[in-house]
Amino acid sequence: MPGAVNLGRMRAGYKARLPFTAAAAAILLAGSAAIEAAQPAVLRAAVRSWRQAHERAIVTDFVTLLSMPNVATNVADVDRNAAWIEQQLRSRGFTTQLLRAAPGTPASVFAQRQVRGARRTVIFYAHYDGQPVGQRGWLTPPFEPVMRTALAGGQTVDWRAVAPPFDPEWRLFARSAGDDKASIEAMLAALDALEASHIRPTVNIKLLYEGEEEQGSTHFAALVAKNLDLLRGDLLIMGDGPMHQSGRQMVNFGNRGFIGLTLSVYGATRPLHDGHYGSWAPSPAVSIAHLIASLRDDDGHILIPHFYDDVAPVSAADRAALAAMPPVEADLKRALGLARNVGPARLADGYLAPTLNVRAIHVGDEGPAAANAIATHADASLDFRLAPGETPQHTRELLEQYLTSQGWFIVRADPDLETRLAHGRIVKVVWDEGGAIATKTPLELAASRAVVASIGRTVGYPPIELPIVGASSGMADIVGQLEVPMAGVSIANYDDNQHAENENLRLGNLWDGIEVYAGLLADLNW
Amino acid sequence: MPGAVNLGRMRAGYKARLPFTAAAAAILLAGSAAIEAAQPAVLRAAVRSWRQAHERAIVTDFVTLLSMPNVATNVADVDRNAAWIEQQLRSRGFTTQLLRAAPGTPASVFAQRQVRGARRTVIFYAHYDGQPVGQRGWLTPPFEPVMRTALAGGQTVDWRAVAPPFDPEWRLFARSAGDDKASIEAMLAALDALEASHIRPTVNIKLLYEGEEEQGSTHFAALVAKNLDLLRGDLLIMGDGPMHQSGRQMVNFGNRGFIGLTLSVYGATRPLHDGHYGSWAPSPAVSIAHLIASLRDDDGHILIPHFYDDVAPVSAADRAALAAMPPVEADLKRALGLARNVGPARLADGYLAPTLNVRAIHVGDEGPAAANAIATHADASLDFRLAPGETPQHTRELLEQYLTSQGWFIVRADPDLETRLAHGRIVKVVWDEGGAIATKTPLELAASRAVVASIGRTVGYPPIELPIVGASSGMADIVGQLEVPMAGVSIANYDDNQHAENENLRLGNLWDGIEVYAGLLADLNW
Repeated sequence: MPGAVNLGRMRAGYKARLPFTAAAAAILLAGSAAIEAAQPAVLRAAVRSWRQAHERAIVTDFVTLLSMPNVATNVADVDRNAAWIEQQLRSRGFTTQLLRAAPGTPASVFAQRQVRGARRTVIFYAHYDGQPVGQRGWLTPPFEPVMRTALAGGQTVDWRAVAPPFDPEWRLFARSAGDDKASIEAMLAALDALEASHIRPTVNIKLLYEGEEEQGSTHFAALVAKNLDLLRGDLLIMGDGPMHQSGRQMVNFGNRGFIGLTLSVYGATRPLHDGHYGSWAPSPAVSIAHLIASLRDDDGHILIPHFYDDVAPVSAADRAALAAMPPVEADLKRALGLARNVGPARLADGYLAPTLNVRAIHVGDEGPAAANAIATHADASLDFRLAPGETPQHTRELLEQYLTSQGWFIVRADPDLETRLAHGRIVKVVWDEGGAIATKTPLELAASRAVVASIGRTVGYPPIELPIVGASSGMADIVGQLEVPMAGVSIANYDDNQHAENENLRLGNLWDGIEVYAGLLADLNW
Repeated sequence: MPGAVNLGRMRAGYKARLPFTAAAAAILLAGSAAIEAAQPAVLRAAVRSWRQAHERAIVTDFVTLLSMPNVATNVADVDRNAAWIEQQLRSRGFTTQLLRAAPGTPASVFAQRQVRGARRTVIFYAHYDGQPVGQRGWLTPPFEPVMRTALAGGQTVDWRAVAPPFDPEWRLFARSAGDDKASIEAMLAALDALEASHIRPTVNIKLLYEGEEEQGSTHFAALVAKNLDLLRGDLLIMGDGPMHQSGRQMVNFGNRGFIGLTLSVYGATRPLHDGHYGSWAPSPAVSIAHLIASLRDDDGHILIPHFYDDVAPVSAADRAALAAMPPVEADLKRALGLARNVGPARLADGYLAPTLNVRAIHVGDEGPAAANAIATHADASLDFRLAPGETPQHTRELLEQYLTSQGWFIVRADPDLETRLAHGRIVKVVWDEGGAIATKTPLELAASRAVVASIGRTVGYPPIELPIVGASSGMADIVGQLEVPMAGVSIANYDDNQHAENENLRLGNLWDGIEVYAGLLADLNW
């Protein structure tokens, strides 16, 4: 069923709204020689028409990709994915190679295609590896993709036996359906749609598909460093993560920084009966509570002196973009069972500031092993999300200076007896490996405006502009190495259960994603 | 090898120190007809002599008792212990019966013996059941008693093949060796020693050996209530728990009260990515830290308003007894690796005040399941040790009033969505079953003085008088029901690993315990 295209948004300025079949648009386009950029509505109509004619083929390809186990702890597994993707791109006219930081580490698939006359080179990033699948509650095995009619309570659909068009509300369940093979499949389909419609991209294309993102991108920075000249470009488009809760297309321009740590405090060297010793022996449980309470108030404010000193001021463009974010907070509170929030009332308003999270606290035994005892130690796992301007190194210094000023003696390993006897308040501080600064591309840059404009023309409304994502990303380092503006473009439904059991992609999101990618390939100019 | 007896401490007033064999004392005693109370040194010599002649038989009996599994979750197991103990007492001339609160619940062994001319009736309490044995690290199975030469690093001893005297530093390893079958074996041996020496007790004897103390004495109060007339007496001697750390004999006169509870606080109904939501969603980890910090400072002081209002004043006798306690704090700190303590400098000085203990805090996942997530809830397990004058009921009220005044909405079960949406700070408060007030017998009572005097004569020095034990005991309720003064007399070594793996009794403690019990049977007068 051909779609109706709204010509009113075509850049060429048609004023009338005309019923217009995509097939007709494709014919029209094929007939015009040497166009530099397709008219947006024509482009969209051509891509949509091609997709509608190829829904079963697209899903078949996607299912093939999703059927390949891709947990990067098994390099042979991820290598099979890489080989398949490389083959797909080679067959589409790309020059390809597999990049590795070192033998035996997961490969990144790199592919590039030069476009005659293009002035800009755009790097599209995604990752083809997936989260571990050990979660309980998978309705069907994670690497045996199954179509269902809905997220919860849906029926299984034998989509191979159903004549398209497929219902866009259907969801394909499999590990990485949303995070992040959807971005790769959307790109493949977009390339096919452009090729079939004889629409030439407006930019040189570099594709970089990572193979160990969900394992912490351990070797990715080194891989990029080894291939800097190969990878350079004018813009990096990050295709990862879910869309905005409103379902509206969103572009983000960075990620907060990150540093994690574990704190441990100590009591007696053996558990003590809390009746006999509770009035006298220090309580690690009480100490860790006071320590944590001294770091953050219950409304989210970090109490470490000078913690906000380095935070970069929020620009007028950022402020305007945040103010334009669609409100999601009331719905979120209802969905999450929350009567209050901490920090700013608007979710995204907190993203340009740091956050201290307490991931876990563990003291003493629970359940059958519980005892009226004073535990020997208490552990807490924390992380900081860092705002632009802050660094992991200075964060470490500020926290440790504060702990010291509060009377804590800092150690890096469990203290020996001599240390215990010398210091009344001992805290073991163990920082997680790595850490990252925030990365943030100014919204005002021409490249930023071009991405927003392209997507706006594709979807027919101004996309949400998120100055920075609250979460962190190993991409901060990559952006730094490549010295490139970055725009994050997500296509997966926000309820795709990424990282969890029953990960899924809503079909309509894949369809829309194909159009968005096609627009970024063939309707991106600055 | 006969011991040398110090006649200088005999009540009859011998001034000279003479070498004196126990065997001679026994002969001397056997020759004197119709004595009402044995002379203390003579009594002690007779008991010691008998014990020295019967060490292997005593250990054989004790091993038989310790070989019987006695975890009261298995009533058939504890019943086998009860039957054996009852038989032992019947054969020693006691009238016995097994008391149960209800069919199918663990029995208490009750046994009594009237003594011609005795004015007082003394109830001796102990328990024959033991703690669960699931701990890791048992050197040998908990119900296969093994003798070793030392607590740590000792050699196994084939005591059946060694000619007595046994080294008093040897330790017998088995569940309940210290807690609390030692008290029962010491009583059996003391009765035998008196019988063999023709020494008549000075008091009517009631023995009450409980079978579910380590399971919280669930049915014990009802059992006592059903048998009040049978059980009444003039003094209750509690034979449970370890001795003072100094190794000196100690008498205690009560226990603190107790009430335990679990607190849970709530965040969103599902775990949230702490990068995306950490600036906005409430953190149960941070909330529980602030909640706990608001209840107790890091120096042990309870911050709940009016919490100390009901605490009974400390009497002059209590104060004097506490001041006379041997200092253990410096050694304890060294042994426990502590550079500081909370509360009063002296361990026992805190026992006449309440304590708030935080037994456990659990929020979020650790280890492989750890995530950069905001947990849905946080749990803490607490208990209060209550001073004389305080009640569990008023404690509950004070805590809940305080929580309410701090803005917490109290629930008794996990809140439903409606409740979550209506209240920003929800705390689930679940009080443990039961709870107990403190019990405390005044040190000034004649019965109290008599116990102290008897033990002093047996051991040759003034025993430590502890006004109250920091720990709690189900016996508080029993003491209340029986309206009887209570004195706690412990014989087990303080390092007996009670409630833990490798529980043990030092043989010398059993030998001393036999003499102490013999004194309390045959040299107790008021």
